[in-house]
Amino acid sequence: MNIYDVSNRAGVSIATVSRVLNGNPNVSEKTRAKVLSVMDELGYTPNIFARGLGLNTMKTIGIMCSDSSDLYLANAIYFLERELRKGGYDSILCCTGTDLETKQKYFDLLRSKRVDAIILAGSKFVEMKPRDNAYLIDAGKEFPLMLVNGYLEGPGIYSTLCDDRAAAFEAATRLIESGKRNILYLYTSYSYSGLNKLQGYKDALNAAGIFVREEYIRQCPKNITAARDLCARLFEDGLEFDGCLTSDDSLAVGAVKFAHQAGIAVPEQLSVIGYNNSILAQCSYPELTSIDSKVEALCVTTVNTLMGIFSGANVPAKTTISADLIIRETT
Amino acid sequence: MNIYDVSNRAGVSIATVSRVLNGNPNVSEKTRAKVLSVMDELGYTPNIFARGLGLNTMKTIGIMCSDSSDLYLANAIYFLERELRKGGYDSILCCTGTDLETKQKYFDLLRSKRVDAIILAGSKFVEMKPRDNAYLIDAGKEFPLMLVNGYLEGPGIYSTLCDDRAAAFEAATRLIESGKRNILYLYTSYSYSGLNKLQGYKDALNAAGIFVREEYIRQCPKNITAARDLCARLFEDGLEFDGCLTSDDSLAVGAVKFAHQAGIAVPEQLSVIGYNNSILAQCSYPELTSIDSKVEALCVTTVNTLMGIFSGANVPAKTTISADLIIRETT
Repeated sequence: MNIYDVSNRAGVSIATVSRVLNGNPNVSEKTRAKVLSVMDELGYTPNIFARGLGLNTMKTIGIMCSDSSDLYLANAIYFLERELRKGGYDSILCCTGTDLETKQKYFDLLRSKRVDAIILAGSKFVEMKPRDNAYLIDAGKEFPLMLVNGYLEGPGIYSTLCDDRAAAFEAATRLIESGKRNILYLYTSYSYSGLNKLQGYKDALNAAGIFVREEYIRQCPKNITAARDLCARLFEDGLEFDGCLTSDDSLAVGAVKFAHQAGIAVPEQLSVIGYNNSILAQCSYPELTSIDSKVEALCVTTVNTLMGIFSGANVPAKTTISADLIIRETT
Repeated sequence: MNIYDVSNRAGVSIATVSRVLNGNPNVSEKTRAKVLSVMDELGYTPNIFARGLGLNTMKTIGIMCSDSSDLYLANAIYFLERELRKGGYDSILCCTGTDLETKQKYFDLLRSKRVDAIILAGSKFVEMKPRDNAYLIDAGKEFPLMLVNGYLEGPGIYSTLCDDRAAAFEAATRLIESGKRNILYLYTSYSYSGLNKLQGYKDALNAAGIFVREEYIRQCPKNITAARDLCARLFEDGLEFDGCLTSDDSLAVGAVKFAHQAGIAVPEQLSVIGYNNSILAQCSYPELTSIDSKVEALCVTTVNTLMGIFSGANVPAKTTISADLIIRETT
């Protein structure tokens, strides 16, 4: 049910329906009454963002990401731009870093450009403290706010998520089923997505009756060398681990590099699973088993949802997509 | 010498100088005469794109790239966006693929948005046939066209280049000096940058008195598996090679993977050098020696040149930056 159905049934143009929706006075009383009665008859609730066919808009969408040179986000930007362009929309890109003040500044800047919507790519935009998200909740009342793998509840806010918790559960379970008991979990941040991955890891251990030990859960900067050195330090400190699950492929590559250095056989003595199934998974030697977090599907769905909103369709506020575990040589 | 000097000397505002430059009638004859005489006195030739402090502009720059998910281009977009934002400019991103018609279509689209300039990131925008570049040459008469690691001559066209020929020369020479004689050259495309790299390879062989053999120069899709399989096929066909220089790190990783498969020791039996010094160089095992093609410096210089143009400074049409060879474990 959308603006096209209303236009067809009322026998008026899309532009006329749009004018009625926007309270534009250039519509006769008779036509206005007709359109409103058709809406009523069809049970059509106009989405406040429905703008018909881009009337009175710049046909431009703001995309914010923390860092467009990150492998995952670079792919996200590529797919978002491609899908928006297919729909006739331009993209204005903003790389914001992770500092809240800078994110707010760039958000206001995009807002001042009167973009038709803002897409927040990646899970770095939802803060732990609710008051830090107030600016997003407010903005959702003015235009659609689309979150790619982040989640926030509020009017005008739409999330498309990868089921990271189920994915991490499946990956950790695979390590356990192959006989591993001491499984390290390396993560980069406590984002929405990061917390879900961690929960999936804990769920899998609990389900297998393995005690979750905090010393096996370690934060690490998103870079190969840092992960390699962290593994080496833990190993020297006497921590025994025969499996390693990570929140990003770069950390998994670091774990594999540690194994090379220490003369530990992969996967026999140490099994490793990465996340995002990036080009690093293929570049690694041996090649990484990794979770495909479906960035293309997330981006396509995000843009489809947005186009649905613009055309006045009813769209879900939250869509979840399943990940795939891609088996290679490190398990 | 720029618009600020004229403004200071004439004792009028930047906006007034800009009005004179743009032929705006809202300037008294007396003031206009004063400004013109100061320009004459200072020998100032107004750049046709000088727009003073962004008067009458959208403060928006179009960025075109063939594929924003490519590692090199993802970094380029990140640095360009960051530098433009520092200068108070927004970026509209267009990912064009490599098809000429699509590139032209997106170029016209950006042009219709009245962007202040267009930046072409990467060397995929200059075609072999001069008539295929006519649309770029034409556009340079209307607004600045900035090429990042591509080169085209014409009014209003500015290039910032990495000295790829010297970089490939240095890399091939290093292989030769370490005793290698049969050096494979793997490349992805015959772009401006691609041709320079190839020439550097040939120059180095010639300088060392080694005959250049066409069967050692091979094109390969930009992906790890394709490069691995190409090396394996050449090896099975009996081609002997003890060195491999590539136009992209992904091809070098493929060569290293071939060596693993075939039981060939790296670097003892096969030395490998990549290009771009991307995260793949660090991810590879052993880690790749690679040419740092200075994408950050190229992007910073491109934006500085553009800001210079906007402020009416004299800027060079062509700037060349030297690459660095980063030595790691594959040489």
